[in-house]
Amino acid sequence: MRNDQRQVNHIRPVKITPDYISHPEGSVLIEVGDTKVICNASIEDKVPPFMRGKGKGWITAEYAMLPRATEQRNIRESSKGKVSGRTMEIQRLIGRALRSVVDLDKIGERTVWVDCDVIQADGGTRTASITGAFVAVVLAFGKLLTKGTISKMPVIDYLSAISVGVLSDGKEILDLNYQEDSQADVDMNIVMTGAGEFVEIQGTGEEATFSQSQLLTMLQLANEGIEKVTEYQKETIGALSDRIGETVT
Amino acid sequence: MRNDQRQVNHIRPVKITPDYISHPEGSVLIEVGDTKVICNASIEDKVPPFMRGKGKGWITAEYAMLPRATEQRNIRESSKGKVSGRTMEIQRLIGRALRSVVDLDKIGERTVWVDCDVIQADGGTRTASITGAFVAVVLAFGKLLTKGTISKMPVIDYLSAISVGVLSDGKEILDLNYQEDSQADVDMNIVMTGAGEFVEIQGTGEEATFSQSQLLTMLQLANEGIEKVTEYQKETIGALSDRIGETVT
Amino acid sequence: MRNDQRQVNHIRPVKITPDYISHPEGSVLIEVGDTKVICNASIEDKVPPFMRGKGKGWITAEYAMLPRATEQRNIRESSKGKVSGRTMEIQRLIGRALRSVVDLDKIGERTVWVDCDVIQADGGTRTASITGAFVAVVLAFGKLLTKGTISKMPVIDYLSAISVGVLSDGKEILDLNYQEDSQADVDMNIVMTGAGEFVEIQGTGEEATFSQSQLLTMLQLANEGIEKVTEYQKETIGALSDRIGETVT
Amino acid sequence: MRNDQRQVNHIRPVKITPDYISHPEGSVLIEVGDTKVICNASIEDKVPPFMRGKGKGWITAEYAMLPRATEQRNIRESSKGKVSGRTMEIQRLIGRALRSVVDLDKIGERTVWVDCDVIQADGGTRTASITGAFVAVVLAFGKLLTKGTISKMPVIDYLSAISVGVLSDGKEILDLNYQEDSQADVDMNIVMTGAGEFVEIQGTGEEATFSQSQLLTMLQLANEGIEKVTEYQKETIGALSDRIGETVT
Amino acid sequence: MRNDQRQVNHIRPVKITPDYISHPEGSVLIEVGDTKVICNASIEDKVPPFMRGKGKGWITAEYAMLPRATEQRNIRESSKGKVSGRTMEIQRLIGRALRSVVDLDKIGERTVWVDCDVIQADGGTRTASITGAFVAVVLAFGKLLTKGTISKMPVIDYLSAISVGVLSDGKEILDLNYQEDSQADVDMNIVMTGAGEFVEIQGTGEEATFSQSQLLTMLQLANEGIEKVTEYQKETIGALSDRIGETVT
Amino acid sequence: MRNDQRQVNHIRPVKITPDYISHPEGSVLIEVGDTKVICNASIEDKVPPFMRGKGKGWITAEYAMLPRATEQRNIRESSKGKVSGRTMEIQRLIGRALRSVVDLDKIGERTVWVDCDVIQADGGTRTASITGAFVAVVLAFGKLLTKGTISKMPVIDYLSAISVGVLSDGKEILDLNYQEDSQADVDMNIVMTGAGEFVEIQGTGEEATFSQSQLLTMLQLANEGIEKVTEYQKETIGALSDRIGETVT
Repeated sequence: MRNDQRQVNHIRPVKITPDYISHPEGSVLIEVGDTKVICNASIEDKVPPFMRGKGKGWITAEYAMLPRATEQRNIRESSKGKVSGRTMEIQRLIGRALRSVVDLDKIGERTVWVDCDVIQADGGTRTASITGAFVAVVLAFGKLLTKGTISKMPVIDYLSAISVGVLSDGKEILDLNYQEDSQADVDMNIVMTGAGEFVEIQGTGEEATFSQSQLLTMLQLANEGIEKVTEYQKETIGALSDRIGETVT
Repeated sequence: MRNDQRQVNHIRPVKITPDYISHPEGSVLIEVGDTKVICNASIEDKVPPFMRGKGKGWITAEYAMLPRATEQRNIRESSKGKVSGRTMEIQRLIGRALRSVVDLDKIGERTVWVDCDVIQADGGTRTASITGAFVAVVLAFGKLLTKGTISKMPVIDYLSAISVGVLSDGKEILDLNYQEDSQADVDMNIVMTGAGEFVEIQGTGEEATFSQSQLLTMLQLANEGIEKVTEYQKETIGALSDRIGETVT
Repeated sequence: MRNDQRQVNHIRPVKITPDYISHPEGSVLIEVGDTKVICNASIEDKVPPFMRGKGKGWITAEYAMLPRATEQRNIRESSKGKVSGRTMEIQRLIGRALRSVVDLDKIGERTVWVDCDVIQADGGTRTASITGAFVAVVLAFGKLLTKGTISKMPVIDYLSAISVGVLSDGKEILDLNYQEDSQADVDMNIVMTGAGEFVEIQGTGEEATFSQSQLLTMLQLANEGIEKVTEYQKETIGALSDRIGETVT
Repeated sequence: MRNDQRQVNHIRPVKITPDYISHPEGSVLIEVGDTKVICNASIEDKVPPFMRGKGKGWITAEYAMLPRATEQRNIRESSKGKVSGRTMEIQRLIGRALRSVVDLDKIGERTVWVDCDVIQADGGTRTASITGAFVAVVLAFGKLLTKGTISKMPVIDYLSAISVGVLSDGKEILDLNYQEDSQADVDMNIVMTGAGEFVEIQGTGEEATFSQSQLLTMLQLANEGIEKVTEYQKETIGALSDRIGETVT
Repeated sequence: MRNDQRQVNHIRPVKITPDYISHPEGSVLIEVGDTKVICNASIEDKVPPFMRGKGKGWITAEYAMLPRATEQRNIRESSKGKVSGRTMEIQRLIGRALRSVVDLDKIGERTVWVDCDVIQADGGTRTASITGAFVAVVLAFGKLLTKGTISKMPVIDYLSAISVGVLSDGKEILDLNYQEDSQADVDMNIVMTGAGEFVEIQGTGEEATFSQSQLLTMLQLANEGIEKVTEYQKETIGALSDRIGETVT
Repeated sequence: MRNDQRQVNHIRPVKITPDYISHPEGSVLIEVGDTKVICNASIEDKVPPFMRGKGKGWITAEYAMLPRATEQRNIRESSKGKVSGRTMEIQRLIGRALRSVVDLDKIGERTVWVDCDVIQADGGTRTASITGAFVAVVLAFGKLLTKGTISKMPVIDYLSAISVGVLSDGKEILDLNYQEDSQADVDMNIVMTGAGEFVEIQGTGEEATFSQSQLLTMLQLANEGIEKVTEYQKETIGALSDRIGETVT
């Protein structure tokens, strides 16, 4: 039994509130246990310089935490005047992951800006961000479909993420909360598609290592978690669900 | 009649949700019409270098907007690597205003960090921030009282803020929403105490000017608005209300 | 009697030296008591990106202090690599104030850069900057008139600024010097036109508050001060004085 | 057959030149095919603030490329005034990986600074950096052993890294050069110990995904590659090889 | 004859106004032709970290230009957020030159901050800065002598600077104004002591070169110029002149 | 006899390895004693904004040191987020010196980027950089000649640099190593052409001065050194040697 009474293969309760903020084309509040992230997707009618003239779009992501999303207050990155290495890693990950399931050729020279702002953190903020951002992006494209700006949903498949890890007693667990995360020997974030393909695997053993057998157990747990998370995404997306994948069939 | 059917002397609906984020000592979500700001107050057990050794505390504030709190997405200040002049003005204003009603001699060498993060903007974000931040600070001190860290509520009086302005037709109005604000000739932010004293007056006529008579009408409107906003603060604060002012009597 | 023997409603001696620096289109040294500011106005034949194609001009201001303009040496902002919040507030104020009395539609797509550099400080540097900058801008437009670049003086009315405050004994005073400013409970900067209209009111009671009656006394003092300062401006401007307002009549 | 005539499971020639630069405690030039990285390890007799007073050491890494290490000249990060997200990710990875095989409790309050400077790039610069950095660190500790500063080699096991990937034809390959890397659908970097345990797995499919079966094939290839690379490290390290692991037995 | 009717070996009129700004320990306005520089010397009762505990002092200099000191307005370095290479070169030069004639062992652990702010530029701003800064430093030490903080004038010898150059017609000239400077093939700045020793020689032929014979002619001209400039310094310094060199005799 | 057994007028062994890095158009490793610098010259087919439309080219240089090129590890300038004054001075010097011997009118609107990266430092890194950079630039132009992009070698004359100095015993010496440099009273860097003309003279006596007679002795030593260094350049350049100067004859 874990510190919050979960089984090793249980994820925390997930709640995704659509249309959370009024201005963005797509917006959700995703709650995974006590982790809460506002994910906004904005459509801009141009692409960054390196993409111009190719007739295709781009997706980029930014990630931040409110200073007091955490137990100890963090210095605001705008005050420090620079973005930390951790933030950069996470926002590069979110953008890369989303691009793997969006048909950028079908959205014209547009940029989707995804903003993931963690307002409360209890572990798994980057995986919650990816899961929530996916829904925000689908909602944003839904708005473009309604307006007739695009004619097909350019999203190829579902995308979500979950963490797995190995506790110091060697036990593999799914969806670590902050307390577990800070005690784990191994921390791994897995991003997968609805079809069960891998998009990203990032496994790290700081001051520890892990075996191939532990890796396989973690991948199996991740697979179970991703399936459940995908269900929550489907519910939130509703009718738009039927249109996912329509550009590839 | 105004664009949202209000009378000139009516404020928008105010809703203050206490204990909104779990980690901070004091936390509220304040909603003033469609403007939504998370105000968190954090207590740190030390003061900045210029205050050390004086046996008294300090209050400082930071203000930010989510990139898509507004109709058009704004570039994140952490990405730009610097804080804008507008942000600096607002956070200096919030900190200064709060310090005017807190008895810094009574809190020991502690810093209160106030973070106002606008998640949705529809005008009046700085005044909503001050109003919400005041409640967050009272709640945070309430927690110190409960723990016995301090023995008296170090808050001298209520503090809240409201905007007033003059529309291009010369009409003075109270609590401008974004559409009104962008069309107004004169924009004025007023910070007042519960006792009706001024803490700050910041009135600006960009490409316009205003007369003493208009000024007096605006001050009268502000006074009415502040009284109503203070009522919302009292309700949220509840029993702690009785302790405000106890260090000065 | 005040620390420099002035009555409460007396301003310090004002001296405005025109054509102080040779290169700028308009240049003055303004001295208000021991406060000395070089105000240069430069005309650039283009506007910033957000103003392009509108057929009108722009005015922007920058403000700085020599490191040893003050009793204690300040670190140079170029060495710190960023401009302080105080500097930003002041330069935004100067630019905004000047724009309120210039008919930007009449100057074509040009930018007026106003540089206010405080070489010696004794309180009231921001108000002296506004007063001096106004003269520098008029002189710069005078040069454009002489060259025939523009045909009418695009300045609608006089513009000047003065500080008022409340000392800790509750006495309201006009034009605070540094010693008074550092002891005052309330500090207010007022920007007015020659016609006696308000352009900006910025009143602050750090760790203090003020009543409506005190406000009205301060406004009355400010009015007296502005009238005297405007006289000094008229003298310096000389014959160009007759052309102020000619675009609106 | 690959573009440089290798089999899918062949690594490029590896050459590690010890004592390449004279000043650092440990220094190597590592060449993996046409990729060349100078890896310097410097011992500093203090630890960063967050580690002070714990009686243990720290390892941190920095990574950079000469502007013309690549086909197109890159702007120098010191000129841009900030380190890119890619650089941050890589230097965090190198430091984390090294810390997993060093017994930080046995080196006292010292910091090992590892500098990996790519002077010529042809793919796999981060994995070559890890492999070379490991040797530089062992050489630096060797110098401390000789001087008697420490009495046991604080390195627990070998550490090296290799890349694997999937080409667009679905073929899994080992140790990608630049041309292969830029065409690959999947790019994975694996860091392993001499004992065959995983330290880091970072697999990414930008605009592509990969299956569990492809993952297992890649892990197998990585395993073969790591074994060969470890041999090159052993040769370079020479007699110090016998002392690796001596703190844990 | 030159563009301002001078002979090749004539310097421009020099005027040094002492006690120009009231706050600094030493302050002058130096005018060399139309070049005007405010030189302030501030005494701080501590030294930078790298000098602590050595029982001796330090001199450092900063240099800046008002944006409109020049014909074209320059962007303020504080706005750019960094100091240009040219500024760095000049301020390093000024500091280094002053340190060569001050007996740092005799001033205790104090820092002399020298600020050279060019308010109007017409060539030779760095040499005028050095010449003026020397006087400001002597005046500042004079104040320390008067207060009894130090007992001997710690200045070993006079220090001044002048420019020389070669025009495109091959003619060597002394003390170039801006127009000459922008047309010269060779530009050389010479810093010398009162005793005629060299402190710095910086000669540059951008897109041009110079011979040893030209060099010797330039050095001869510089020598003549330095002698005259030193006379102006002596006059300004007055009675303190007798004390220069008293620590070395 | 000097600390490395050289005569006062002897330079250290020079070795220039051409084509050191594969990607740049021109690349050398220059070794002067224990000082080692990688000099890469890259040709870019455009010029910076201030040079556009003039039909001529530009040469600019950047200089950096590996953190552990020196006895003590230096903080990486990309980590500090800014380039030091020393680095700026050196890279401005290198660029200026190279431009004096290249016929920029003959290279079209192209920029030559010269990168000098010191991998090991033992004094004289800036002079070694200039000497090596010259060869890299010639090799890069050689590549353009071979490709037929330009038809004549646009290099007018040889260019190299050497240091001279005065030891504390008053002895003038040629080509100072680090130990000598750190003890010298006077440090002078001389850049000369193959024809023996001066391009730059930068002589500095920090906390010391020098006489005209010492200057002349140093210039004589520099002359001898430059001649020898030029020979090494000729050897490396080989057949291209014959084409130097062909645009001017």
